[in-house]
Amino acid sequence: MTWSRDGVPLYAVVMAGGTGTRFWPLSRRSRPKQLLPFAEGRSLLAATVDRLAPLVTPERTLVVTSEDVVEAVRAELPRLPAGNILAEPSGRNTAACVGWVAWRMARSKPDAVMVVLPADHVIPDGPALRSALAGAAATAAARGGLVTLALRPTRAETGFGYLELGEVVGAAAGRPVHVVKRFVEKPTRELAEEFVGAGNYAWNSGMFAWTVEAIQGAIREFLPELAGGLDELMAAADTLGEKEALRRHYPTLPKISVDFGVMEKATSVWAVGVDFAWSDVGSWAGLSEVLQSGTHGVTLGDVVTLDCAGSVLVSDGPLVAVVGVRDLVVVATRDAVLVVPKDQAQRVKELVEKLHEAGRDDLL
Amino acid sequence: MTWSRDGVPLYAVVMAGGTGTRFWPLSRRSRPKQLLPFAEGRSLLAATVDRLAPLVTPERTLVVTSEDVVEAVRAELPRLPAGNILAEPSGRNTAACVGWVAWRMARSKPDAVMVVLPADHVIPDGPALRSALAGAAATAAARGGLVTLALRPTRAETGFGYLELGEVVGAAAGRPVHVVKRFVEKPTRELAEEFVGAGNYAWNSGMFAWTVEAIQGAIREFLPELAGGLDELMAAADTLGEKEALRRHYPTLPKISVDFGVMEKATSVWAVGVDFAWSDVGSWAGLSEVLQSGTHGVTLGDVVTLDCAGSVLVSDGPLVAVVGVRDLVVVATRDAVLVVPKDQAQRVKELVEKLHEAGRDDLL
Repeated sequence: MTWSRDGVPLYAVVMAGGTGTRFWPLSRRSRPKQLLPFAEGRSLLAATVDRLAPLVTPERTLVVTSEDVVEAVRAELPRLPAGNILAEPSGRNTAACVGWVAWRMARSKPDAVMVVLPADHVIPDGPALRSALAGAAATAAARGGLVTLALRPTRAETGFGYLELGEVVGAAAGRPVHVVKRFVEKPTRELAEEFVGAGNYAWNSGMFAWTVEAIQGAIREFLPELAGGLDELMAAADTLGEKEALRRHYPTLPKISVDFGVMEKATSVWAVGVDFAWSDVGSWAGLSEVLQSGTHGVTLGDVVTLDCAGSVLVSDGPLVAVVGVRDLVVVATRDAVLVVPKDQAQRVKELVEKLHEAGRDDLL
Repeated sequence: MTWSRDGVPLYAVVMAGGTGTRFWPLSRRSRPKQLLPFAEGRSLLAATVDRLAPLVTPERTLVVTSEDVVEAVRAELPRLPAGNILAEPSGRNTAACVGWVAWRMARSKPDAVMVVLPADHVIPDGPALRSALAGAAATAAARGGLVTLALRPTRAETGFGYLELGEVVGAAAGRPVHVVKRFVEKPTRELAEEFVGAGNYAWNSGMFAWTVEAIQGAIREFLPELAGGLDELMAAADTLGEKEALRRHYPTLPKISVDFGVMEKATSVWAVGVDFAWSDVGSWAGLSEVLQSGTHGVTLGDVVTLDCAGSVLVSDGPLVAVVGVRDLVVVATRDAVLVVPKDQAQRVKELVEKLHEAGRDDLL
């Protein structure tokens, strides 16, 4: 069933532009995180599109990715019409990404509602997600503002942004709709603990719903430079062809996130409170939350263990044989092997930087 | 200078028959430990033969190895006459190995003295080894018995056999020559500590010297079945050709070590006390003693580290990138990766057994 409310068509925008060095050596420039097989053997991207399908069909799902990986994305999504995959000539962060889609839709479907979500999150409970998105879309259609999904925090995570929730102004698919009082950037440990204890703070999920009109209006108001750039891009597309216009104008668009550039500044922002299981799989350590776990930890690919515990062991080719380790990440590909304790998994970025400086870009 | 004493020729026998699963995944059936590049980039075998050369020329050095790896051994030792590499159809332990060489030499050089040593030990001080071997050979020639090099123990090692040394009966190249009172199999921790404290115990090095006549006599006396098998082998070699005779008879020879089968039982056994640095490189952990060590530990091949300590990091192909670990062994080849704490390095054997049982012999 394709959702519509009073004839308003619902579209999904899947943001699949990330490059992601945090999953090196499995992730590479040519294979970013969203293409990694972390969803029961399928890519996170394919799982995201499939998860949406009962609410938004592939025909109404748009995937925005980068030119470099557009062929790989197409191969992952055989059911998606080829024209629904939009390739950015260069990454300009999420405001440009959602703006570009909104400006395009303003021509063909100006009355549409868009749900926007990242390609690389794991949400096991598909029905809960779809119900929440349907509620958010209905709220966006009814109220005309910007709607975000607010995740109930389960730990004092310092790696996410938070939302301070205000009064409940309604309900959406059985979930409370709050006024958003403010956005908080990644907090300190103390602040994060305070937020989780307080009860009226939520994780900013990066999943949104809005009408084409509302997001266009907000971008025009808070990011006029982006709006002007998108106007030029669309005008040039009429004369040059879209590909050439993109190549010329897209790389000049302001590079800013939709959270920071638009959501934080807008006044009509609503949050639909959700509490389904969710992970942004932020590092190798985060795989523990996502993959099927045994006593040795989680494994993917050809792995043999003796007396291991709490580890993340991944092979993309060679046999990985691990004996007597605890809370260790081991990832092996044909040309590179990573070993790092789980609690230092974030340092992969540092390592990638070191390899880049050493001229080892062939491995990145 | 080729050593000789009153015209007695000196030969070296390098035992290179080991298969060695303890260095998996770098060691394989087709590349046993003695062929691994643990001697400053060269194989342990090549380093052993080169170390001997100033005392025993390649022309008088015999290398005994297994049929499976004879080509690889030949490639490692281009200066050795091809006929000096003897291939066993199957491994029958060291008594058969030294017996075979002795029976062959009894025909061509019955008056020779042999020094016998493993191919896979590391002894950085070549002059000290050569001087000790020359002394042992002179002792063997003068006394007619069996001579072993007795290493001064530097720690309470439970992985080696020990010798209890008796009275000093002479000197060899400035080193004491002891009567050997008894051989002790691998001791318990308590016993090993007692031995090291007592002062009159030494590590059994597995390096020997004897005349052809003495070792033949001892094998005839203590291993008559082996002596009979070798008699048959040599008789058949006259009619069948050596290769066919070997294939037929060698695999039936008793499988026993020269230490256990001969040395422990013989009455005229002398030990030359030595104290040069020595390692049998018994496991991945043992590489720490042998390779050039940095703060991160030892590395071989393409390895990048961030904040590592005391580790053994080896690549035979893929980049190995290791962050924040301590006392860990990581070994990567194109088709298999091993990760194990240094203090559990012995468990590689268990792992190899598990892989064999799982039908993964292609990786062994």
